[in-house]
Amino acid sequence: MPERIFNFSPGPATLPPAVLQEAAADIVNFKNSGIGLIELSHRSKAFMAVAEETEALIRELMGIPNNYKVLFLQGGASSQFFMVPMNLLGSGQKATYLNTGVWAKKAIKEAKLFGQVEVAYSSEEITYKRVPRDDEYTVSADSQYLYFVTNNTIYGTQFPTMPAKDIMLIADMSSDILSRPVDVSKFGLIFAGAQKNMGPAGVTVAIVREDLLDRVGDKVPTMLKYKTHADKDSMFNTPPCFSLYCVGLVMRWLKQMGGAAAIEKINREKAAPLYEAIDSLALYRGHAEKESRSLMNVTFNLPTPELEAQFIREAGAIGLDGLKGHRSVGGCRASIYNAFPKEGVEKLVAFMADFAKKNG
Amino acid sequence: MPERIFNFSPGPATLPPAVLQEAAADIVNFKNSGIGLIELSHRSKAFMAVAEETEALIRELMGIPNNYKVLFLQGGASSQFFMVPMNLLGSGQKATYLNTGVWAKKAIKEAKLFGQVEVAYSSEEITYKRVPRDDEYTVSADSQYLYFVTNNTIYGTQFPTMPAKDIMLIADMSSDILSRPVDVSKFGLIFAGAQKNMGPAGVTVAIVREDLLDRVGDKVPTMLKYKTHADKDSMFNTPPCFSLYCVGLVMRWLKQMGGAAAIEKINREKAAPLYEAIDSLALYRGHAEKESRSLMNVTFNLPTPELEAQFIREAGAIGLDGLKGHRSVGGCRASIYNAFPKEGVEKLVAFMADFAKKNG
Repeated sequence: MPERIFNFSPGPATLPPAVLQEAAADIVNFKNSGIGLIELSHRSKAFMAVAEETEALIRELMGIPNNYKVLFLQGGASSQFFMVPMNLLGSGQKATYLNTGVWAKKAIKEAKLFGQVEVAYSSEEITYKRVPRDDEYTVSADSQYLYFVTNNTIYGTQFPTMPAKDIMLIADMSSDILSRPVDVSKFGLIFAGAQKNMGPAGVTVAIVREDLLDRVGDKVPTMLKYKTHADKDSMFNTPPCFSLYCVGLVMRWLKQMGGAAAIEKINREKAAPLYEAIDSLALYRGHAEKESRSLMNVTFNLPTPELEAQFIREAGAIGLDGLKGHRSVGGCRASIYNAFPKEGVEKLVAFMADFAKKNG
Repeated sequence: MPERIFNFSPGPATLPPAVLQEAAADIVNFKNSGIGLIELSHRSKAFMAVAEETEALIRELMGIPNNYKVLFLQGGASSQFFMVPMNLLGSGQKATYLNTGVWAKKAIKEAKLFGQVEVAYSSEEITYKRVPRDDEYTVSADSQYLYFVTNNTIYGTQFPTMPAKDIMLIADMSSDILSRPVDVSKFGLIFAGAQKNMGPAGVTVAIVREDLLDRVGDKVPTMLKYKTHADKDSMFNTPPCFSLYCVGLVMRWLKQMGGAAAIEKINREKAAPLYEAIDSLALYRGHAEKESRSLMNVTFNLPTPELEAQFIREAGAIGLDGLKGHRSVGGCRASIYNAFPKEGVEKLVAFMADFAKKNG
C-alpha cells in the first residue's frame, strides 16, 4: 500500500484500503477464474453470487424485514427524487416534505410534477443550519408519506432520531446509511447513493416495502417502476456490476467492524473531538446548530474567506485533503464517513489547534 | 498477468488486459496521488481531467461534429428506450421503428407510452434472423425519426450499412459502437451501454444533436432530460466515475489500435474464419441470414440441443468460455467485440473443426 492521504471528500469518499486492494486484484482476475470481475457476464454464476451476498449482507447489517425488497438501481439519489413520487404518489394525492437542504429541495421540485406537496418545515432561510424536532411541524392526515433527508451533507446537519410521526417515512439516507442502527420497519422506502458510506459511485440502493410496489401507474416507463427491478432481483437489465460488487466488499468490512451499532460508536468518537475543537477554539465557528450536528459531515467557518482558504491550503500541504466546504455555503467541511480513519481526525484536530495558535 | 480464459460473453465482455491492469493500479492509488480512483470526488481536478479526456477521445474516434453533445448517463440502454421518446416525441407525434430483435421491441413498447409508433419492418416471425434492406420498408413523411438497433446481439444480425432514408436516424449501438466508422451527422441521437465495446457496465454513452435538447416538455423530471446533463457536462449529479474512467482507458487502447477503421478490419478478420467454419462444416448452421451477419456476435446451431450442450461444455473445458446462446433462441453464440483477441477465434475455429470431425 503506497502512502495514503487523509481524504475528507464528501463523496465519492474514502474507502477501506483492504477493499481497494481486493477490488484491484479481482478486476484483473476474479477469484482466479481467468476472467476479470468487470468482464463477467452479470448472469454468470460467479456474478450472481456476488449480488446475492451483497444483498444478504445489507439485509443483515440493516436488519431489513422480509417484507422489504433491496434493489440496486442506477441514476444516483437524484433519480429517486422523481421515482419516489412517480411510483408512490397518485395524481392529486398529497405528500409531506421537510426542506432541510438542497437535496430535499430538489426532491420537492420533482415531487410537484406528480402530486400535491406539503412542505411542513423549512430551514432554508437560516442557511439550513438545523433540522426540526418533531414538535416543530405537523403532517396532514391525508398525506401519503413524510419525506426527509436523514443527513444533510452540505450543511453538516443530521436528524439525531427519526421523526416519530404517525405516517409512513421515506428517507434519503445517501450520506449516513449504515452509520447507525435504524428501524427499517418505520419506513416505506429508504434510498442511498452508494458513494459515501457503501462504496463507489454508480449504484443506488433502494429498500422498499413490498406492498408499495403495485401502486405505480400504467403510464410509467418499465425501467422507472420499482416493481420491474424487484421482480427480477435487480437483474432486469445489466446492473452496475463493479459498484455493486464494491458495496459487497464494504459490507463485509462493516460486518467485521461489528455492524451498525459498533460503527456508530466509532463515528461518535471521531466526530466528538472535532466539535470540541470547534467549540473550544475561538477561531472556529460551527455552521450547524448543536442539536442538529452531523456525525458524518463537520462544517465550520473561520473569520474570513481568506483565512479559510489559507486553512484549507495548509491542511492540504500536510496530507489533509478535501476540506473545502460546498460552494453554496463556503467555509470548511470535514466528511468523516464510516471508512474515514480515526488517525485522520486526530491529525486534523491537532492541525486546527496549531493553526488557531498561529492565526488566532 | 495470470492465465486468461477466452471469454466470449455477450456483455459485460472481455476487455484489453492492459486496461484491467491500469484500472487495478489506479483503484488503489490514482496516479500516485495517495487517493484511490474510486475515492476521488467527481469534482476534483483529477477526475474532471479523466472525464474530459474520455469525452475528447470518443469525439476523436467517432468523428463527432461540434454540434453534438457527448453525455455519460446511467440506467443502461434500457433507460434510453423511454428517454428517447420522452425527450423527442411530442404527444400525438409519430416515430418509426424497425423491429429487428428483443431490444428493438422493448424500445417500441416504451415509445408507445409517449406517441404514435409506426413499425415499418419486423423480422419477429422469422426469429429475427435478418435486418431489412432499405427497399424493404417505407417511412411516413410525418415521422419524427427512424429508430433502429445497429447490431442485434441475441440473433447475431447487424445492419451492414446505415439506413439511407430521408429522416433523422436514432440508433441503439450498444453492441457495435466504435467497431466500425459511422457518419454521426446522419443521426439525431446515438446511444450505447458501455459493457460491450467501450468498457464495463454502469455507464451509457449518448451522443445527441444539440438542437434536439430543447424539444423536451416541462413535465419531464430533471434527471430524465438530456438537456440537464448536456448543460452540466454530465456532472449534474455524481456520474458513474469508475465506469466512465474505464471507458477512457478503452478509448486510449482503441486509438493505439488505429481507431474505428483499423478495428473494423480486424473485426472482419476475426469474424470471417468463424463464418467460414459454419458454412463449410455440415455440423453447424448459422442463425442469421448471410446478408445480415454480425461481425460482433456469431450465432450458430448444431443438429440437437444435446449436441449444442456438449459443444459448449467441451469448449469450456479448453478455456473457451461463454459460448451458450441467449436463452430466447438457444444454440451457440461467439461474441467477439473489439477487445476479443484473434487467438481466441483461431482456437474456437480449430475446436469447431475438431468437434465436427468427432461428432459429424
